[in-house]
Amino acid sequence: MKANILTNEELLNHWQGHRALTRRVIEAFPEKELFEYSIGGMRTFADLVKELLSIAVPGLEGIVKNSTEGYNHNLPLKTKADLLNAWDDATPKINDLFMQISEDRFKEDFNLFGEYKFPVIQNILYFVDNEVHHRGQGYVYLRSLNIEPPFFWERE
Amino acid sequence: MKANILTNEELLNHWQGHRALTRRVIEAFPEKELFEYSIGGMRTFADLVKELLSIAVPGLEGIVKNSTEGYNHNLPLKTKADLLNAWDDATPKINDLFMQISEDRFKEDFNLFGEYKFPVIQNILYFVDNEVHHRGQGYVYLRSLNIEPPFFWERE
Repeated sequence: MKANILTNEELLNHWQGHRALTRRVIEAFPEKELFEYSIGGMRTFADLVKELLSIAVPGLEGIVKNSTEGYNHNLPLKTKADLLNAWDDATPKINDLFMQISEDRFKEDFNLFGEYKFPVIQNILYFVDNEVHHRGQGYVYLRSLNIEPPFFWERE
Repeated sequence: MKANILTNEELLNHWQGHRALTRRVIEAFPEKELFEYSIGGMRTFADLVKELLSIAVPGLEGIVKNSTEGYNHNLPLKTKADLLNAWDDATPKINDLFMQISEDRFKEDFNLFGEYKFPVIQNILYFVDNEVHHRGQGYVYLRSLNIEPPFFWERE
């Protein structure tokens, strides 16, 4: 039987919990390795974080303003402090934009960034999944640098 | 304003989409590296997959049967074929168990595996997040082995 199992506030809190953990992973990297270290030809963790930043607020803005402008992952953030400041700037913007999306809108198709036409709920679940995916990669970078990552279940 | 944004069927489909991708990541590993390769002292991808298998069906069974028995990650699966068969065995069981959980039950606290007392919806979101997290680690293992992982957005 069909059941409604998640509200907008619950998903927002869930995402912000993940974002708090991702912030801790950024902090765990030494400055140099954050911008230079990678494995197997992959991107640095700084580049992955810039991708996350260029999706979260711009993606929600696209949904709320019904704009299909493309994304730009190449943000001018050059230090760990730059990344953390951008991360913290995004936090209240995400809260504000997310809560402007109506129940009906979550169900409607939207051509995110002019490229990804899916129901809004799927687009937003993708934001979260993509963050968990890339952060998992960051965990391997940290472990291979002999740095203990934060506990996965800590979300405050 | 409060909005219901996800149904049980949608979350189940979302999870099974992720499971289809994780299956493809298992397939991408060479037999030997699946069971022997790791980075930074982490577990092998086979061990991570055994963890996922020991959470999904046993976790849902615990919820449905209201049993707080502990988990056992140490499954007797010795080959890639063993892992893939166990993965495929779990697929219809997950569908069946998941749909037995009522709307009210998703909101109730449950002491999963006798250790993790959270609302059922949070326990199940954790199953999915944990899978995405560990699979992201598998992507790094594959890249460092010079093997192209499947596309992250392929979920069929």
